[in-house]
Amino acid sequence: MSIATNEHITVEKIKKSKLDQVDFDNLTFGKNFTDYMFECDYKDGKWQNPTIKPYGNLELSPATKVFHYGQAVFEGMKAYKDDQGEVFLFRPEDNFKRINISSKRMAIPEFPREFFFEALHTLVQLDKDWVQPGEGNSLYIRPFAMATEVGVSAAPSDEYKFMIIMAPAQAYYTGDVRVVIAEQFSRSADGGVGFAKAAGNYGAQFYPTNLAREKGFQQVIWTDAKEHKYLEEAGTMNVFFRIGDTLITAPTSDRILDGVTRKSVLKLAEHNGIKAEVRRIQVSELVEAAKNGTLKEIFGAGTAAVISPVSAFSYQETVYDIPKQEDSYAKRFKKELMDIQQNRADDPFGWRYPVA
Amino acid sequence: MSIATNEHITVEKIKKSKLDQVDFDNLTFGKNFTDYMFECDYKDGKWQNPTIKPYGNLELSPATKVFHYGQAVFEGMKAYKDDQGEVFLFRPEDNFKRINISSKRMAIPEFPREFFFEALHTLVQLDKDWVQPGEGNSLYIRPFAMATEVGVSAAPSDEYKFMIIMAPAQAYYTGDVRVVIAEQFSRSADGGVGFAKAAGNYGAQFYPTNLAREKGFQQVIWTDAKEHKYLEEAGTMNVFFRIGDTLITAPTSDRILDGVTRKSVLKLAEHNGIKAEVRRIQVSELVEAAKNGTLKEIFGAGTAAVISPVSAFSYQETVYDIPKQEDSYAKRFKKELMDIQQNRADDPFGWRYPVA
Repeated sequence: MSIATNEHITVEKIKKSKLDQVDFDNLTFGKNFTDYMFECDYKDGKWQNPTIKPYGNLELSPATKVFHYGQAVFEGMKAYKDDQGEVFLFRPEDNFKRINISSKRMAIPEFPREFFFEALHTLVQLDKDWVQPGEGNSLYIRPFAMATEVGVSAAPSDEYKFMIIMAPAQAYYTGDVRVVIAEQFSRSADGGVGFAKAAGNYGAQFYPTNLAREKGFQQVIWTDAKEHKYLEEAGTMNVFFRIGDTLITAPTSDRILDGVTRKSVLKLAEHNGIKAEVRRIQVSELVEAAKNGTLKEIFGAGTAAVISPVSAFSYQETVYDIPKQEDSYAKRFKKELMDIQQNRADDPFGWRYPVA
Repeated sequence: MSIATNEHITVEKIKKSKLDQVDFDNLTFGKNFTDYMFECDYKDGKWQNPTIKPYGNLELSPATKVFHYGQAVFEGMKAYKDDQGEVFLFRPEDNFKRINISSKRMAIPEFPREFFFEALHTLVQLDKDWVQPGEGNSLYIRPFAMATEVGVSAAPSDEYKFMIIMAPAQAYYTGDVRVVIAEQFSRSADGGVGFAKAAGNYGAQFYPTNLAREKGFQQVIWTDAKEHKYLEEAGTMNVFFRIGDTLITAPTSDRILDGVTRKSVLKLAEHNGIKAEVRRIQVSELVEAAKNGTLKEIFGAGTAAVISPVSAFSYQETVYDIPKQEDSYAKRFKKELMDIQQNRADDPFGWRYPVA
């Protein structure tokens, strides 16, 4: 695939790179940003002035709508460098489509394809030295759009800003993830915005997650808001259950995010001849499987950690430990995914996207 | 009640007021802000440096958490000036309590009472000339809190900003409000954040509201997400139904905002000997009442418009017009509320709060 030229985007060059100030062996996730960022404004009914400029602060009125009404969406993507120094994205077309699906639900104007891909190409080329090769290293890429009209009337903004910022990331070791099954709080409603990467979906989970943390658990597995009977997603990850040798995950819906890692895992399962069921799964089925020993694994799938094995879950004050698995699906999928992402394996599905 | 002195708040004076640049006869709601604003930062585990300063822009990193995770809450209040030039707030204690209820649900640290009230007193005193006397005129006050930590990991911020900005407002004439009863989209889930004035609750309503507007309706009356069977609230207003001579409104819950105007209307109804029922009300009951002629009024109650009479509602593709009422409850409550707010009537409930 050819590298895009700058047909639309203006580039303002940095004076001096910050690269030498970064300790790549001790990165905190999402805290250190690269030299450049992309910025594009929606005004007078169109997206205009796409610009790549030195990473820096924004000047915004305190009456900017995003502060008051949460009219904002985002994506999470990663770039990987192989041993030859070539840089790849992973299925960026899916992120592009999804941010526009999210935007539509949040009444934000859709972003043009040519700007999105040209911005990614140019940004990653300019900041290529920020992408470190090696196991688990990546450049985390955060496209986002937000309402920038000045005014506090509760109506859609008529101005927006679309930005892409990037932060180098190390292997994201989540440790043993222990989860709580939600019995009282909910993440999303039928007819709501749960399928969108809308900003407010994340802030709304912080308090219930804090309550879980106080009890020694790191994440919440959300259940349906109607009955808290069906397992849905973990808020920043989709969730897979392995009962016997069958993999089960909830179908996407207007409450559940259509995760890129989720669908990649399903594809790999098919490729590996692992039986996978996309169906509603009841909490009671999970508990039963934990009790009778057929529950072999739970793991999360998402861009940040790729695959996060879950070591225990709590439900109705009982903690169910999940024994370590010799032949772990989680481990296998993680290796296969990372081998494709980092260009150490064939790419039978065309997921790698050369970018710089 | 005594006017607070500045025990905690630092005041940075403006050089020159913008007051003479404002056309008070042609105000757009929430667009023109006063000379001063209040700002206070949460850092190192405490709210600090409460400051009143000239209204102006903020400088924020593009990685500021509020942009990405919608961790933000707000309040809406109004100040009124009477004919003697005295300025009053309306039940500010309720707004103070509610912003902390909202904050707790959004994992934002609660804001100290003394800072909140001292800020209101001092701000309104400094900007007293921005409060215009006269029917329907007010100063709209917008306290809000937002996550300001720099970083894109999906976890609660460890830094926040609490601000108060103020905008002069004229009588908010909503015209004939025509509403759509929600049949597909939802505003909030059981166990969610619907009861909080969380930023994302508002952005999430923009798209369904746009769809309603395209069909000639201005607002959506939300129904329960489970079955779309019960009438809840209008997103920026609570909703009252008058069937025969009985007033009905939905009980507050974790899906429905505990509106200050809503509870004031209930109090006034009691005071006026009007029968009011706080109970779940089915869409089918409303439709039946519209058909048999017992539905006399629908109106919204909220800070911005005080009372908004609804002239028609749409449900399952049928539009039900509500005939104009001679002895309108909406009109009566609006007059009584505004007379109390603007100090033209007795205040038997102690709702007025002298502030400057």
